Amino acid sequence: MIIRENMKTKAMKTINNELYIGNYRLKDLAQQYGTPLYVYDEAGVRDKIARYKKGLQSNLFKCNVVYASKAFLAPYLCDMLIENDFYIDGVSIGDMYLIQKSGYPMDHIVLHGNNKSNEELTYAVKNGVEYIVVDNKSELKRLIKIEEELKKNVKVLFRINPGIHAHTHAYIETSLLDSKFGESIYDLDIIDEMIKLCMENEYVEFNGFHAHIGSQITNADSFASEASAMLKFVNKIEKQYNIDVNTLNLGGGFAIKYLDDDNEINIEEALEKMIAAVESEVKAGNVHIKRLMIEPGRSLVGDSGVTLYRCGGKKKTYAGKEYIFIDGGMPDNIRPALYDAEYTVGVANRVESDEKRTYDVVGKCCESGDIIAKGVEVGEVHEGDIIIVYSTGAYCYSMSMNYNGLTRGGVIFVGDTVKEVIKKQSLEDLVSTCVFKEK
Amino acid sequence: MIIRENMKTKAMKTINNELYIGNYRLKDLAQQYGTPLYVYDEAGVRDKIARYKKGLQSNLFKCNVVYASKAFLAPYLCDMLIENDFYIDGVSIGDMYLIQKSGYPMDHIVLHGNNKSNEELTYAVKNGVEYIVVDNKSELKRLIKIEEELKKNVKVLFRINPGIHAHTHAYIETSLLDSKFGESIYDLDIIDEMIKLCMENEYVEFNGFHAHIGSQITNADSFASEASAMLKFVNKIEKQYNIDVNTLNLGGGFAIKYLDDDNEINIEEALEKMIAAVESEVKAGNVHIKRLMIEPGRSLVGDSGVTLYRCGGKKKTYAGKEYIFIDGGMPDNIRPALYDAEYTVGVANRVESDEKRTYDVVGKCCESGDIIAKGVEVGEVHEGDIIIVYSTGAYCYSMSMNYNGLTRGGVIFVGDTVKEVIKKQSLEDLVSTCVFKEK
Repeated sequence: MIIRENMKTKAMKTINNELYIGNYRLKDLAQQYGTPLYVYDEAGVRDKIARYKKGLQSNLFKCNVVYASKAFLAPYLCDMLIENDFYIDGVSIGDMYLIQKSGYPMDHIVLHGNNKSNEELTYAVKNGVEYIVVDNKSELKRLIKIEEELKKNVKVLFRINPGIHAHTHAYIETSLLDSKFGESIYDLDIIDEMIKLCMENEYVEFNGFHAHIGSQITNADSFASEASAMLKFVNKIEKQYNIDVNTLNLGGGFAIKYLDDDNEINIEEALEKMIAAVESEVKAGNVHIKRLMIEPGRSLVGDSGVTLYRCGGKKKTYAGKEYIFIDGGMPDNIRPALYDAEYTVGVANRVESDEKRTYDVVGKCCESGDIIAKGVEVGEVHEGDIIIVYSTGAYCYSMSMNYNGLTRGGVIFVGDTVKEVIKKQSLEDLVSTCVFKEK
Repeated sequence: MIIRENMKTKAMKTINNELYIGNYRLKDLAQQYGTPLYVYDEAGVRDKIARYKKGLQSNLFKCNVVYASKAFLAPYLCDMLIENDFYIDGVSIGDMYLIQKSGYPMDHIVLHGNNKSNEELTYAVKNGVEYIVVDNKSELKRLIKIEEELKKNVKVLFRINPGIHAHTHAYIETSLLDSKFGESIYDLDIIDEMIKLCMENEYVEFNGFHAHIGSQITNADSFASEASAMLKFVNKIEKQYNIDVNTLNLGGGFAIKYLDDDNEINIEEALEKMIAAVESEVKAGNVHIKRLMIEPGRSLVGDSGVTLYRCGGKKKTYAGKEYIFIDGGMPDNIRPALYDAEYTVGVANRVESDEKRTYDVVGKCCESGDIIAKGVEVGEVHEGDIIIVYSTGAYCYSMSMNYNGLTRGGVIFVGDTVKEVIKKQSLEDLVSTCVFKEK
C-alpha cells in the first residue's frame, strides 16, 4: 500500500511484509505490552529535537526551544529533552509536578494557562520556574500578591493575542480577537496597566511577550507574519516605555502529516523565516530582543508515535458498510470524534496485500462516534491482526480516558532497546480512587 | 434567574440566595472536597430508581431495569441499585471488575459491547454474568468456543438493529442500518445461522433479543415503535423455529433536560406504552416473552448530578466577548466540545442577581474548544464564586481525562449525609503509571 509508505516513522521498515521499528517487530511489541499500545520511534523524536535545535540559532540572541508538553508528557521524554537543553512548558500543577519529579531543572520550565489557580502560581514561584506566561491583567495582580508574600521574583511574559488567522480547525485556532487567550495586541490600555504594575513592583520581572497563532500550521509565512506583527508591537512598547523587551516567545503550531497527501510544515524554512524577521529588526536597532523562544508540541512527537491495536473482527452491515473492530477507540484517541481528525491505518503484520476495500475502523465503545477512521483503505485484514494507526504521538495519550471502563494503554519508546515509559493501567489502577464499602 | 429554577435537582433548594442540596450548602461542599466536584443529589437518583421500578411492571412477564453503567459508575451507586434489585450492564472487563468488587451479584450483570475480547467473554462466563448480549455472529462463535472450554453455560441475547431512526445526534444514534452495533433485523440469514449455532450447542443458551435505538429520545412513541418492530420480529422467529423467545431487552435512550426549555421523556408514559405493546402481543399469543428489560443510563443519574467549579476570573476580549474562567473544563466534561452539547450554568452562591450579561463559560485548558457553555446568562459573577453546571450526572465523570495534567475531580452523593463516592485524584495518582528513572 503505497499510501502508507510515506507515513512511516524514522526507523520504521518492512521486513517480510511486517512492520518493524529498528529491530523490533511491532506485532511482538503488541503481544508483549498489550494493546492498545502507544509506540514511539525514539529515532524520530531525536531527529525532530535535533532539527529544532539546529534550526533555531542566531548569533544575535539566545534561542530556546520549549516543548509544549500538553501534546504528550512522560518522564523519559523529559530526559531526552533536557539532554538537549530544551525548555518545557506546563499548564497545570499536575504538569509541573510530573516534570519536576522526572528530575527536570525547574529553571527550564515555562508555565502557561489562561486560568492559573493561586495554588499553581504559588507552586511555580516557590519552585522557581523560569517564566510564567501571564494570560491577563487579573492574573498578573494575583501573581504580584503571591510574589510579594513569598518575597520571590519570577520573570513574566505577557500573552498577547496578535489577531492573526491561521486557517485551522476552530477548536485549535487561538488567536482570533475573541479568543480566551491573552490580551489583545490592540488593547493598549490594559497592556499599559500591566507593564506599569510590573515596573512598580520589585518582584515581578516583565521580560517580554508570548504569542501563539494556532495549531497545524503548514505555511512557513504564517510564522513570519506572526513574527512581524509581534516585532512591530515590541518596537512600539520599547519606545513607549524606554525599555528593552528581552524575550519574544512565538509559540508553536508546526503541522505534521496525518494522511499521506497532507502538507506538513517545512520546519527549517519556518525557523529561518522567523529568525530572519527577528534578526533584521534587531540589526536595525528597532528591537532589543535577547532571547527568542518557540514552543513546538505536536511537531516534536506526533508523527513519531503510532498506536497498535488488535483487530477483534470485521462486520458488514445490511446496508453494506464494512467495519474493522479494534480493541481501543475513542478512549485512547478522541481526535476523530472531537475534531473530525483523519488518520492513516494499516496492518502491522501484513503491510502489502492485494485486497482493496474500504473500511470504517471503529473501537469497542458503546457509542456510534467511536470511529478512528472512516472509509479508509486498510488492505487485507483478519481477526487477530495488529492494526496500526499512524501519527498518534500527540494529543492521543494525553487526552486518553477510562470511558467504558477501558484501561489506558501503555507507552513505549523503541530505539536500540525498548523502554516502557508509561505502564498500561491495571484494573486496580482503574478503580484506585473508588470508595468501596468495607466488608 | 427563572431559567435555572426548573433545572434544580430533587432536593435542591435556595436559602439566602445560595444553593443547597438538603442541608448542605454547595459552596461548603466545593470548599471541603475541592473543585471541580461532581455532586449527586441522592434523593434525585433514588426517585428515578423508584419511578423506573414502579413504571416497569406487568402481571404477564417479569420486568427488569438494567442500569447502563457507561453513563456513570461508582460502587456506592451499585449499592443503591442492588438494594432495588436492579440489573446493571457493563461493556468491558473494567466495568465488570468494578461492579463485582462493589459486591454486586454477578447474576445481575448484563455484558454488552460490539467488540468483546476473548478475555472479556471468558471473564463473563467464568464469573457467571446473567446475560451476554452477543453483537454478531463471529463473536457468538468465539463465545461458544470459550463456553465449551470452560464447560459453563450462559444466557445470550442477540443484539438486533431494528433500523429505526430516533432523531438524535449522529454520534448517539445507534440503530441506522449501517450502525456498527448488532445484526440487522433484515439480515435473516445471519440470524438464522446464529440461532442454529445456539440450538446445536449444549452451553450457549439463546434467550432472546436486545435492541437500542439511540439516546436522548424525548418521544414515548419511539419506544412503542421499537417495541412493535421487535415484537413482530420475535413473532416471526418463534414461528419459524418453533421456540419461545424468553427475553426482550429494549435498551435505553430516555432523554433528560440540559436546558430549561428542553423536552425530557415522560418516563411513565414511555414505559406504559412499551409494556402495553408487549402485553397485547403476549395476550394474543403472538409472542411468549417471559421477561422484559430496559436499560436507562443517563436518565437515571444525569439530571441528579451537577458539577461545581471555582471561578478563576472573567475576561472581556478586545472584540467584546466576555468569558468566565472555571477551574476545570473539557477534561471533566467533554460533551460540549464533542457533541455540541449545551448546559445550564449558574452561580451556586448567588442564585438571583439583577445583572443580565451573556458569557462564554470556558475552562483552563490550552485549547480553544475548552468551552462548557457558549453565550449563556449566568448573572452576576466574581472571581472565587462557585459556578454550577446542571445535568452533568451522565457522561461527564465517565468520560473525564487528565488532559493538560488536570486531576480528575471527586464525586460525592449528598443525602442525609455526604458520601465521598470517588476520591479526587491526587498528584500521585496522576503520575502513578509513569516510569521515573531511579535516582
